[in-house]
Amino acid sequence: MKNDASVTENTTVGRPAKFRPPNINQVRVGGFFGPRIDQIAGKTARALFDRCIDAGMLDQIDPERPSPGIRIAPHSSHLGVTPQMFWDSDFAKSIEAAAYALYRRADPELEARVDEVVDAFGRLQAEDGYLNSWFQRFEPEKRWTNLREKHELYNAGHLIEAAVAYFHATGKRKLLDIMCRYADHIARRFGPGADQSHGYPGHPELELALVKLARATGRQDYLDLAKFFVDARGTEPNFFDEEARQRGEKPEDFAFGTLEYCQAHKPVREQREVVGHAVRAAYLYAGMADVATEFADDSLDPALEALWAHLTERNLYATGGFGPSALNEGLTFDYDLPNQTAYAETCASVALVFWASRMLGRRPDARFADVMERTLYNGALSGISLDGGRFFYDNPLESRGTHHRWHWHRCPCCPPNISRLIASIGTYLFGVADSEIAVHLYCAAEAGLSVAGTDVALRVETEYPVDGHVRIRVDPAAPARFTVALRIPGWAAGHSATVNGEAVARPAERGYLRIERQWQAGDEVELDLVMEPHFLYANPAVACDQGRMALMRGPLLYCLEEADNAPMLNSCILRDDTTCRTTDIEGLPGIVGLELEGLRETGGQQPLYGLTPPRREPALLRAVPYYAWDNRAPGEMLVWIRREG
Amino acid sequence: MKNDASVTENTTVGRPAKFRPPNINQVRVGGFFGPRIDQIAGKTARALFDRCIDAGMLDQIDPERPSPGIRIAPHSSHLGVTPQMFWDSDFAKSIEAAAYALYRRADPELEARVDEVVDAFGRLQAEDGYLNSWFQRFEPEKRWTNLREKHELYNAGHLIEAAVAYFHATGKRKLLDIMCRYADHIARRFGPGADQSHGYPGHPELELALVKLARATGRQDYLDLAKFFVDARGTEPNFFDEEARQRGEKPEDFAFGTLEYCQAHKPVREQREVVGHAVRAAYLYAGMADVATEFADDSLDPALEALWAHLTERNLYATGGFGPSALNEGLTFDYDLPNQTAYAETCASVALVFWASRMLGRRPDARFADVMERTLYNGALSGISLDGGRFFYDNPLESRGTHHRWHWHRCPCCPPNISRLIASIGTYLFGVADSEIAVHLYCAAEAGLSVAGTDVALRVETEYPVDGHVRIRVDPAAPARFTVALRIPGWAAGHSATVNGEAVARPAERGYLRIERQWQAGDEVELDLVMEPHFLYANPAVACDQGRMALMRGPLLYCLEEADNAPMLNSCILRDDTTCRTTDIEGLPGIVGLELEGLRETGGQQPLYGLTPPRREPALLRAVPYYAWDNRAPGEMLVWIRREG
Repeated sequence: MKNDASVTENTTVGRPAKFRPPNINQVRVGGFFGPRIDQIAGKTARALFDRCIDAGMLDQIDPERPSPGIRIAPHSSHLGVTPQMFWDSDFAKSIEAAAYALYRRADPELEARVDEVVDAFGRLQAEDGYLNSWFQRFEPEKRWTNLREKHELYNAGHLIEAAVAYFHATGKRKLLDIMCRYADHIARRFGPGADQSHGYPGHPELELALVKLARATGRQDYLDLAKFFVDARGTEPNFFDEEARQRGEKPEDFAFGTLEYCQAHKPVREQREVVGHAVRAAYLYAGMADVATEFADDSLDPALEALWAHLTERNLYATGGFGPSALNEGLTFDYDLPNQTAYAETCASVALVFWASRMLGRRPDARFADVMERTLYNGALSGISLDGGRFFYDNPLESRGTHHRWHWHRCPCCPPNISRLIASIGTYLFGVADSEIAVHLYCAAEAGLSVAGTDVALRVETEYPVDGHVRIRVDPAAPARFTVALRIPGWAAGHSATVNGEAVARPAERGYLRIERQWQAGDEVELDLVMEPHFLYANPAVACDQGRMALMRGPLLYCLEEADNAPMLNSCILRDDTTCRTTDIEGLPGIVGLELEGLRETGGQQPLYGLTPPRREPALLRAVPYYAWDNRAPGEMLVWIRREG
Repeated sequence: MKNDASVTENTTVGRPAKFRPPNINQVRVGGFFGPRIDQIAGKTARALFDRCIDAGMLDQIDPERPSPGIRIAPHSSHLGVTPQMFWDSDFAKSIEAAAYALYRRADPELEARVDEVVDAFGRLQAEDGYLNSWFQRFEPEKRWTNLREKHELYNAGHLIEAAVAYFHATGKRKLLDIMCRYADHIARRFGPGADQSHGYPGHPELELALVKLARATGRQDYLDLAKFFVDARGTEPNFFDEEARQRGEKPEDFAFGTLEYCQAHKPVREQREVVGHAVRAAYLYAGMADVATEFADDSLDPALEALWAHLTERNLYATGGFGPSALNEGLTFDYDLPNQTAYAETCASVALVFWASRMLGRRPDARFADVMERTLYNGALSGISLDGGRFFYDNPLESRGTHHRWHWHRCPCCPPNISRLIASIGTYLFGVADSEIAVHLYCAAEAGLSVAGTDVALRVETEYPVDGHVRIRVDPAAPARFTVALRIPGWAAGHSATVNGEAVARPAERGYLRIERQWQAGDEVELDLVMEPHFLYANPAVACDQGRMALMRGPLLYCLEEADNAPMLNSCILRDDTTCRTTDIEGLPGIVGLELEGLRETGGQQPLYGLTPPRREPALLRAVPYYAWDNRAPGEMLVWIRREG
């Protein structure tokens, strides 16, 4: 059989490519993520639903139930739960996770419960389409008076995402129709028209949700509205300042300081640095990237590229987490990446996966996919326990043993966010353009895609990230010419690829091996990625990481845990040439641990501060993937390990 | 002339020694602290006074002025100033600092202003002696209903200290009489009697203040009251819990968690670990030590010794600061000594100087004096700028350049606290017992003391801590036999001493060279302490300090500042055998800097996380005393410097 595999220049030159993710019902995931999705389907999705209802969210939504009232008790912020203006979004994300769960496996009881909530939203929705449980139940007179802080448009976005997910997963239109009516309401109210409000979300999110809604419904006006929100943001006169004055407030009294907090300090096309609240930032940039893709809008590129560089070259943890400060849940100053106090909110990592995936909308580029993968497997996945029952809100890179997972959180944004990401991970594996399928992430999966006018079944077989061997069977319904772009991860020390057993010799292009050929049923691609443990060294400007190194294998960042190494992890030292081998880890079945021949300082009987340096002895150290930490006995954890020298 | 210098066993065996500090008017300080005291007398004391009055404190005190009311505005905790229930204490500490200033140099205008405030307190004082501006102006019905949180007894203590200071400094009795009336009121209300309240201060301080008042007035009942407060604390049934129930509150709803916060979780004699709010803790232990001294109460020793060991062996920064956490302004868990986020409140260091000085009440013991000195010269002195105009509230051991001195603080406890300590430092240099003078700290000074029934003039000449040479002239009014105990600091690599030129050969006893002899006018003691820069290494349990070392010379801890070393201080590396010499430092005249031949890592152009370790080059590093940092251009600071190896 003739090998016609070849790598070509981008075939979409002159006609902007629009790589879009498949829908949830186009991909069936196995391998590494399969059991995690099963867990969410079988356990987490129900638990999230239970906790939303226990918190009183359905009472807030359902107009037939007594309103829970606004209980503002002393210390309510430390104890218990009070109604929150962002509850619609938390419930929405839980519905979205449930939707993906229902696609994964039928669960008539869970589906009935979702339908019950959908019905309540239906009853709540105003005649004019408006829908917000906080404002409709508590502050009906204050609708649309404080976009800067009150999460109205943000809640709408999450409900739209939930509606699209539920529609794709179950085929049921009711929530989708409700949200289209609300989106229509918003589209009437907000826009460039002289009779319209020129406002935009204080907490971005609706932008990317409207793009999802447009893709699900084919409605151009939703895309236009997303673009309006992107274009209007931060323009003069500043909407949030004007709106504050209309409320009788001074703009400078904004509780969160400046408008950098919500990325409304200047027009988005003039923004060059990632600032403010981390989740807001990444959701906004994701929406910008979506708009750039859908409108082939190159004018957003300089901002998106500069923002990407600013984040990834100066402000990203090795986990893919970002936003070091709890004070603003966000950015501080360049290279400020403290480990023990890292906020690095799970939601920010989830949002960065969203942003990175959308930066792939114009073309395959491993710069974006590498960060997406790093963030997914480390700073995002760490947000949920291996048993799917507990969660991290903040994700430090070092712990003295006092940081542990929550069952729930007063601000319960992270648990459903990481759950919906994992449960929908199939939609992140591939990007599909008119004549190209990009494989961004490697995970065993079966996908039914449509490219070059042909249905293509893709079957990926791999143990990744246990090893770097990947086999992809490409089955077009009829022979067709298109490109399959295989990502070569930045961490790979080498790679080799074959199509039907014949080597692909061409170099990778922006980190992707782009194989254009006439594909036929039964074609098989094999990819081998050299996956060896290796060390990372941080730029000297990252104060906390100096004299230290971090350990990676494939996409996984590793850490030391007290459970495997006894306490005082900062007495552990590695050499640059430390021998490292894979090993099983007690209590973490199926997880690839690493064993290292390091050193350990001793001197427990020393005074608090002595005149002599500690002694060193050889010591066998064991490292586990960062995402798997704090799943055994509580204890210390350390990512950046001291380096001899 | 015959040398009859000799070192004897403690002459007070069988008759407990009571080492008490001299009064402010018994010591005239020069040398290192002289100019600092002049600065407080000439500038800081007035500024503190101005800021107290600007904040509205006098409006709160003076019943002839309109009450400022309790303004509780949104975000009042971030902006501006609102009346505080602890304001009496802040103003009291400012009066105390002013009193020492007035002793230092006449200032009729400042004295008149103090008198104005004293008059206002006089007008405010109730018929029954009660005196508290918060309760009398705002919550008169709530007197004595919440000792746990409302600072009533704490405020009384600080006003008593101010009264004693003002009396000693100026001879004026008015404030002293006011505070005796209030103390009498308190003594009627609180005590062991069946008709008395068994309460005690939520924020300890009054205990040590009552001992001061007793010493100034000769009143045994004030000592008895101090002892009652010490004895009653933490006994069952717990007073604070009972009191909370009487207010209709659940004890477990205490905003600060458990009663460990205020060291009332168990009787003080059963306490073994320093817990809770750092300042509360050290003030309490200081009061306990005072009671142990005045009552020769050995039953407090096991607790005091264990608490001292727990603090100094597990929970003390190298600066003498303690209490790492901003959340409870206090302790967390053993060896938790993070550098960048160290709270290490200035007030806690000041309080530790108080405690340490009072641990010297039974006998000279360098364990206590070494910590007193370390804390004074480092973690306390850092709390005030070299120009006496700005203040640190928290004192981290590492800064990325974002930590700077305040002009004032919403909770303005630290500025007057460090000011009153420095302005009264003369009272900490010596401890005077019946037949012994202990020299705890070395600073040029002239003292008029009374020992062995004789007036003794002591003249200390030294440049300490610039060098370790000390000359002390001992001039008894008539020849007399007594002991002069000279502290040999723990940091001294060696020492030698002479009396009238003849060597003192006996070894130090508990870190003091105790010279008992018949002293005559003109006797001269010389002491030479070997003062070489040296490195400290932290116990392996102190996570943040591993792979690092700190630099000391004499009592001074050093640090690197960006001003001398360019940014990225964590790229600086020292060897154990690094050459180190003294040097002048630009912008810090008169301060001994240190110059070190170290290494520096380069690689500013590296990616955020790269695969190769940074290169190293020789580099000359300059270190300055920790107390002197942040007095030039803002920038990074680092105490614990990376160590090669």
